[in-house]
Amino acid sequence: MNDTFLQACRGERTAYTPVWFMRQAGRYLPEYQKIRSKVSFLELCKTPELAAEVTLQPVDIFGFDAAILFSDILIPMEAMGLALEFSEGKGPIFANPVRSQKAVDELVVPVPEEAVPFVLDTIRLLRSQLQTPLIGFAGAPFTLATYLIEGGSSKVFLNTKKMMFQEPKLYHNLLAKITACTSAYLQAQARAGAQALQLFDSWVGILAPCDYQEFALPYVRSIISDLRAVTDVPIIYFANNGSTLTGLTTTAGADVLGFDWRLPIGDAVARAGQHAVQGNIDPLALFLPKKQLEERIQTMLTEARDANGYIFNLGHGILPETPPEQVRIAVDAVHRFSGKP
Amino acid sequence: MNDTFLQACRGERTAYTPVWFMRQAGRYLPEYQKIRSKVSFLELCKTPELAAEVTLQPVDIFGFDAAILFSDILIPMEAMGLALEFSEGKGPIFANPVRSQKAVDELVVPVPEEAVPFVLDTIRLLRSQLQTPLIGFAGAPFTLATYLIEGGSSKVFLNTKKMMFQEPKLYHNLLAKITACTSAYLQAQARAGAQALQLFDSWVGILAPCDYQEFALPYVRSIISDLRAVTDVPIIYFANNGSTLTGLTTTAGADVLGFDWRLPIGDAVARAGQHAVQGNIDPLALFLPKKQLEERIQTMLTEARDANGYIFNLGHGILPETPPEQVRIAVDAVHRFSGKP
Repeated sequence: MNDTFLQACRGERTAYTPVWFMRQAGRYLPEYQKIRSKVSFLELCKTPELAAEVTLQPVDIFGFDAAILFSDILIPMEAMGLALEFSEGKGPIFANPVRSQKAVDELVVPVPEEAVPFVLDTIRLLRSQLQTPLIGFAGAPFTLATYLIEGGSSKVFLNTKKMMFQEPKLYHNLLAKITACTSAYLQAQARAGAQALQLFDSWVGILAPCDYQEFALPYVRSIISDLRAVTDVPIIYFANNGSTLTGLTTTAGADVLGFDWRLPIGDAVARAGQHAVQGNIDPLALFLPKKQLEERIQTMLTEARDANGYIFNLGHGILPETPPEQVRIAVDAVHRFSGKP
Repeated sequence: MNDTFLQACRGERTAYTPVWFMRQAGRYLPEYQKIRSKVSFLELCKTPELAAEVTLQPVDIFGFDAAILFSDILIPMEAMGLALEFSEGKGPIFANPVRSQKAVDELVVPVPEEAVPFVLDTIRLLRSQLQTPLIGFAGAPFTLATYLIEGGSSKVFLNTKKMMFQEPKLYHNLLAKITACTSAYLQAQARAGAQALQLFDSWVGILAPCDYQEFALPYVRSIISDLRAVTDVPIIYFANNGSTLTGLTTTAGADVLGFDWRLPIGDAVARAGQHAVQGNIDPLALFLPKKQLEERIQTMLTEARDANGYIFNLGHGILPETPPEQVRIAVDAVHRFSGKP
């Protein structure tokens, strides 16, 4: 069993730097495309044998030091009773956005074992097959709320912020319900065997720090605090585009803080204090020629050397256009430069 | 003549805090919509009488302390020889993206007086009518390049970064040409009477600092340095979503640094050093109820009190959905709380 990832999460010394990539199981891989061509995205998420297979692919192909469950942050939101569609090119769509107390009242807080058994089955299946740790995950409540309130992706998040600013009670009622769902969902993942849990706060970078503190952070803290009571798996919190929020994200209670590429990794390490650090090369830097890509990785490893546990990752999800060969170059470089025998 | 804005740009004490809003002349105003309903967006930009009229509207209606030329950052790019379209809902489109040395070679560096006389005529017209200073502007080269390379707006800027990383010579050739165009364009605006000049680096927040330093900053510096040789109008540099770039943007040579809302204004003031500071309330905060909006503005004025010149602004352009009455509340609050008689 390769335990470097979990050791780094716990701030322990590792023989070399563990590496995994956000969205490592995904569209850039021909092996993934082959399976995906036969089923829809949601079917893939909901079929444990297939979800487990695509989860394993990048670990087997590139030698990543952790696997991350193949799923989507909106799966538990669908289980709250919302019709969810993934349309080609447009991303996720909730046809009935949640913008009233009535809509909030109608949301169910599902029992994960009943509502999303396929996720837990996938985890169990993976644990029987993996030689690396398995990361489970969920969206953080603010990020999930933006999808529910906007009805899908957004650029300026007008409806979300309008609700925050003009109907704060409604907003907080919605967030409390999403938080209850997410908390139960992550606890169920831990029970099923997930060995680390990552909270993705993909859109939190659109908030001023004062608004993050009021409208997003308390719900992250609540989930992490709930988890602490029932499990000791490491918890990773990734606040995307959150460099001005680090004074607050360090108080969320996570073991590991993930960073996007805008903050130099040395600065991230300095701000993370006692937390382990995960990140953060620009996913587009994977398009650099081999020599420059390797140089950039070497520089990052040097700059991150004082981290209290360091996990190499991208600063955001890998793009579908990325040549798999470049992923191999990057993973090998992280391992080689950090002393993997 | 109301000179508070120019005084603040120069770091002088002002009787009260001057305020203007990015995109203050625009779609949220019924008075703008009335004119816009008769002509296309590009026609409006290219008709000096109409462009001047919509420029004046928000100054007359709300008492802003500066006017900003009504135009678009892509106007000079069209003058380089590129077919530009604005499609409803999709934003700007360059049907022939610039992705080869041949395409770069075909770009013209236009003489502003010949290629965009309407911009300079608008400036002259406005100077004869305005009781506040007039701000001219241009896009910063990196931001302009993204539109040319992507062929329009983008989310991940794949083509831009691929060119930077895989064809740096081509990328730098393109940037040099855009820079020459922008430099001449801003100098012509100053000659025509613009009393301050703002460089909008709207997309620079997608760059890691090391890439910003190599692929964006040198061109900003070059434009500002060219301007210094021929004019003493204050220069404002707005690096949107650039909080991790402040160690570099402070070396660009600008008089004033603009900030988006992600960085608390007190931190912006601290990082700006000797620069005057412009910004930075979340444009969506204009949807707050009156009392909270006023409180937020009062807090900002307090936190910005040590600035070496402070100009109140939004942290990004105003949204079309903003109720004009909220703009009035904000402008009045800035003036009242900062001691305007």
